[in-house]
Amino acid sequence: MRFELDRAAQILRQTPYTLQRMLGGLSTEWTASSGDRENWAPYDVIGHLIHGEETDWIARAGIILTQGEARPFDPYDRLAQFERSRGKTLDDLLTEFAHLRNANLETLINWQLTEAQLDLTGTHPALGRVTLRNLLATWVAHDLNHIRQIITYMARQYQDEVGPWTQYLSILK
Amino acid sequence: MRFELDRAAQILRQTPYTLQRMLGGLSTEWTASSGDRENWAPYDVIGHLIHGEETDWIARAGIILTQGEARPFDPYDRLAQFERSRGKTLDDLLTEFAHLRNANLETLINWQLTEAQLDLTGTHPALGRVTLRNLLATWVAHDLNHIRQIITYMARQYQDEVGPWTQYLSILK
Repeated sequence: MRFELDRAAQILRQTPYTLQRMLGGLSTEWTASSGDRENWAPYDVIGHLIHGEETDWIARAGIILTQGEARPFDPYDRLAQFERSRGKTLDDLLTEFAHLRNANLETLINWQLTEAQLDLTGTHPALGRVTLRNLLATWVAHDLNHIRQIITYMARQYQDEVGPWTQYLSILK
Repeated sequence: MRFELDRAAQILRQTPYTLQRMLGGLSTEWTASSGDRENWAPYDVIGHLIHGEETDWIARAGIILTQGEARPFDPYDRLAQFERSRGKTLDDLLTEFAHLRNANLETLINWQLTEAQLDLTGTHPALGRVTLRNLLATWVAHDLNHIRQIITYMARQYQDEVGPWTQYLSILK
């Protein structure tokens, strides 16, 4: 599918509410962090999404729009949430994510980006040259990637309980 | 995690609403079936979940409770939705799924299953002996498996548009 702002915004707008719906009424056994930095629980993932809203997507888009390739993006801290989320409940984090996302979407829409602007380029510290279109498509795919991570984490809680069905469930492989 | 009915029901209860929230406002480019039986679009997946509510989970649980291993389960038609969903909109399917799921959950809860009943066994036509606990845990994991399939399908629409970021996104591999 070709990238279009309207269609991308549909996904970006729903993500916080999808996550609230998915996680809102669940026991902490499904969602709580174990502190394991290699196997993020839903709680950890929401903290990561918050950090992205604060430091990544719109900030990097702003750099592309104002400074282009001359100013590389700041590197992104993939583990910031293990400090930053301390003391907060999952509901706190879900609400915070929704507020930040809505504000960032408003910024994005107010820019009224043209096709020419979507082709502008910036410098990723590891990946090199990227377009604004790449960045915004990645914002969408990144949301979906982390919803998938949450879903997979929860399913694996039942790895043993499904018995022989494990071989039919690709999510358990 | 040990299987417990209350915790399993939390996921089963949310699935239709999570899917409504996730898919409700999206353009059909994200969701419509292409008819490809090997690469299900979100529309196809919801049809599959409906068929499971009608013919699989509660029906099989009923067989275990009343007939045990003597009466094998009926085989499940994985592609029934390609006929059964014809002429319906995605919103129709999401509403139908929610109704069926709610009715089935009510049946499950009204059974007031004991731990001893969860250990009762049945005969799967391909997998052989399974417990009621296996079946109900699989119902949950199957929901999550298909939410994951929907999320993955949507992310792959942007396979090309993310550019160099593709290597950071496990969902695109």
